[in-house]
Amino acid sequence: MCVAELLVVRASGHLLDSQRQYPEWEMENRDLERLLAEGVGGVILFGGCTTELQERCKTLKSWAKGPLLLCADVEEGVGQRFQGGSWLMPPLAVGKIYKRFPEKAIELAERYGASTGSQARRCGLNWVLAPVCDINSNPKNPVINMRAWGEDPVQVAVLISAFIRGISSQGVLTCAKHFPGHGDSLVDSHLELPILSHDLKRLEEEELLPFKAAIASGIDSVMSGHVLLPKIDPNYPATLSSTILNILRHKIGFDGVLVTDALIMNAISNSFGSCEAAVMAFAAGADLLLMPKDPDEAIRAICEALMNGLLPMKRLEEALIRKRKVVAKIEAFDLTIGERLDNNQSHQIEFDIDRNLAKELICNSIETHNYVASGVNKGGINLLRVDGVLPCPFLNTLSPALCLPERAGYQPIICHKHGINPWREDLNEPLALDIFGEGSFFLQLFIRGNPFQGGLKHQEPWPEVISQLQRHNRLSGLVVYGSPYLWDELIKVLDPSIPSAYSPGQMPDAQKHALSYFFQLNEKNKDLKNKKVFEFTD
Amino acid sequence: MCVAELLVVRASGHLLDSQRQYPEWEMENRDLERLLAEGVGGVILFGGCTTELQERCKTLKSWAKGPLLLCADVEEGVGQRFQGGSWLMPPLAVGKIYKRFPEKAIELAERYGASTGSQARRCGLNWVLAPVCDINSNPKNPVINMRAWGEDPVQVAVLISAFIRGISSQGVLTCAKHFPGHGDSLVDSHLELPILSHDLKRLEEEELLPFKAAIASGIDSVMSGHVLLPKIDPNYPATLSSTILNILRHKIGFDGVLVTDALIMNAISNSFGSCEAAVMAFAAGADLLLMPKDPDEAIRAICEALMNGLLPMKRLEEALIRKRKVVAKIEAFDLTIGERLDNNQSHQIEFDIDRNLAKELICNSIETHNYVASGVNKGGINLLRVDGVLPCPFLNTLSPALCLPERAGYQPIICHKHGINPWREDLNEPLALDIFGEGSFFLQLFIRGNPFQGGLKHQEPWPEVISQLQRHNRLSGLVVYGSPYLWDELIKVLDPSIPSAYSPGQMPDAQKHALSYFFQLNEKNKDLKNKKVFEFTD
Repeated sequence: MCVAELLVVRASGHLLDSQRQYPEWEMENRDLERLLAEGVGGVILFGGCTTELQERCKTLKSWAKGPLLLCADVEEGVGQRFQGGSWLMPPLAVGKIYKRFPEKAIELAERYGASTGSQARRCGLNWVLAPVCDINSNPKNPVINMRAWGEDPVQVAVLISAFIRGISSQGVLTCAKHFPGHGDSLVDSHLELPILSHDLKRLEEEELLPFKAAIASGIDSVMSGHVLLPKIDPNYPATLSSTILNILRHKIGFDGVLVTDALIMNAISNSFGSCEAAVMAFAAGADLLLMPKDPDEAIRAICEALMNGLLPMKRLEEALIRKRKVVAKIEAFDLTIGERLDNNQSHQIEFDIDRNLAKELICNSIETHNYVASGVNKGGINLLRVDGVLPCPFLNTLSPALCLPERAGYQPIICHKHGINPWREDLNEPLALDIFGEGSFFLQLFIRGNPFQGGLKHQEPWPEVISQLQRHNRLSGLVVYGSPYLWDELIKVLDPSIPSAYSPGQMPDAQKHALSYFFQLNEKNKDLKNKKVFEFTD
Repeated sequence: MCVAELLVVRASGHLLDSQRQYPEWEMENRDLERLLAEGVGGVILFGGCTTELQERCKTLKSWAKGPLLLCADVEEGVGQRFQGGSWLMPPLAVGKIYKRFPEKAIELAERYGASTGSQARRCGLNWVLAPVCDINSNPKNPVINMRAWGEDPVQVAVLISAFIRGISSQGVLTCAKHFPGHGDSLVDSHLELPILSHDLKRLEEEELLPFKAAIASGIDSVMSGHVLLPKIDPNYPATLSSTILNILRHKIGFDGVLVTDALIMNAISNSFGSCEAAVMAFAAGADLLLMPKDPDEAIRAICEALMNGLLPMKRLEEALIRKRKVVAKIEAFDLTIGERLDNNQSHQIEFDIDRNLAKELICNSIETHNYVASGVNKGGINLLRVDGVLPCPFLNTLSPALCLPERAGYQPIICHKHGINPWREDLNEPLALDIFGEGSFFLQLFIRGNPFQGGLKHQEPWPEVISQLQRHNRLSGLVVYGSPYLWDELIKVLDPSIPSAYSPGQMPDAQKHALSYFFQLNEKNKDLKNKKVFEFTD
């Protein structure tokens, strides 16, 4: 059945049903096998490690009736989602480098794409859902934020073009998202529908530039965003709006694959039924439907609409043609690039070329103030603030953020949403100091715009905590991992004599590098000592 | 070099160096590949999932010069260490069933062995480091505890014999541990050396019975324990004591493989150098050396001692003969049992036969008091006490222990060693109620004797907390997951009107089953409704 070809369903990257992390969203293998045999054309994968992903992709291909699109949201390197791949500094870090070293940033963006592409390919994926083409014009954006390549349209256009050059060289398909731009939103579309006041003129001047650049660079697909632009279409969010999708088709002239963002996201499912959303998106001009809530129902509903004449048959034809065109491109890749890349059947995913890129990004993204050559050595409380610990992908008992301060006498205490509330309702004394005991605080804040966190972080009064701890003479150091906007806020109130650091990334290597300015590294960590090799200066 | 054959080195179950969870203990692949090529005879694996383990075992075999022993500490099912396998109730749960239904418990123990054996084999392992033959005669034992099959010598002997029958039927080697008995210790040998006051008479009457039964049941190997018995050998712990190991060889007459417990454990490494320990254990009568700190150094030291005549060459000969005998047994297994078991090349590890065993163990181990048909429905604080959260193997945001109470209005708060201290120094009011806010407490305590935890839990005043909460009329329910000894203590002070449950296991399915007595399950969890099928009654 041709309609099935247009669905991209969600599956766990783990092989076994019992390992699924989100059983509500990830089908059982029995259903997955059946749907693939019936012709479903794509799978989006979440979770697991690269070894599992390699086996998983092989299995899924063996179940599929025809060629299969295998994609993942690996915007920040394969390691962002699959352990064993490289976990790179978020794109906004490259955006920050661009402001001082544009040439260098462009080179890094291209290598970022190449590294992500070759690792994705080695895992068995053939379609990377990146680059994010949104311009993070709103610092309070709870869902794009660090995922964007910058706050300026031209900068984003230049960097995503370099990324696309890199990734395309490795024989995987690309995806520009989230059309017509999700960077100015104040709410998370995983939780509710963002409303943007932009008119077409504003889009033309800002948001559309990176998408035009992506198309000029040969992007294979564009993903629609779940955002409402009442000045352009007062009724339907972009994903379901032919008016908005027609801008892409007719004004910009994109003739590649148009894929929706996940249809199960609240921004859509709060207001539209599951079948309704699938039919509407398809009618509006989407070619591929990502994560419909119930794939069988979606197929049935679209077939019915085609039979009833509610959907023109022409829509099916053009969607199939576009989809088969990218599939043909993958097959061509396999014949050309594949021959060179795929004969190494090992489980090794990350090579020196990737590690050097990761290091170079780290060494040129982390900022420090009041570097103390002697190290921080008073001892006290190492207060780590994270979103959650069940699990926390960048923290375990051996993480630098715990171990390095511990060796200097700092006892770790982790604050997270399932822990004891550390707050008092007093903006002068927001942190309940009495429940922490004696000692000065070494503060490590892991805060970035993460999907599903609902922007809760903005309610945490960290600037006030800095002032409070300084007043009590109990702040010995500060590291922010994540939001540059929070960092900018905090250094405004930070006493200039207190050592501090900022890292856009939260991964262990970033922790180690940032903390090397505060604490002595032991023998095993000496490799960081040659970090100078990777740094470039004015 | 033959000496290398006698080493069992540690490796991560993950395939990539970057995924190692304990890089201090787990060699890099480069070193591992070299050592296996040089003839190292065994690898013990930790971490990863079953899919990774399958690939890992293939890779390790391809690196090895000769036949390779591949083992793991999967005492509580393969799922205890490797996600994707069955995670069974701990052996002490079967021990508890034995007291009421001895026949049934023996049947369960045999199925426990068969399930663990067949899953281990499917993963590529050929040697399971179980059963624990220690008698948990000391309820305060911080390291054996739930791992033992009971507190009575005859019961342990009977159950481990059944386990061995089960596991041996699946074509994997077995290991009885920790000779001459680690069940009466008060300290954890991972942290320091336990001292036992037993003389030979006491050993003969108690501790040795299960080992004799294991040998009569055809056990393939025995592991020595790091325990000091001054009445038998005042100088050396069992692992390094020829006097004690000779009891096994000459008094009991065991002629199979004698393997040490991990030589890097503090009980040994606090007092003996790394090479010294390896040479001494070998001289004392051990055939295989588990996890020497530096394998190259251990090989060199043993070779030197053999050359110098400090170690008789006869020791090397007999160790090699014994080791090659079990290797031959594996090869015979591969030809007979293997043909039947191994032709299924899938990644599936757990089958209905395993799931039914896991369910039957759960349904017959969980105790409840004051079962409330209407459920607990007041709402309040769901206080979960766990050892640690970085990570917590049985808890994530979708675990029943979080979700089921949450649906009934209980907000989860997790207490763990890296969290804010919940304690006051007042044994009447030990829990700092003011920092938890309003509402009644639904208390879930995940406490069992876990290695490396140092018996810390004994310092937590949970009986006093129960009294405190009851006095304040703020206790709405109690579940203990783990230690039956803690449970016994707590029900003594628990108000009989308060609903409570006890589960020996901590895994999600045990949580779901225990909580089904308190909270309504939703549609997806209805499979538990047929739990009656799995229960047997007097």
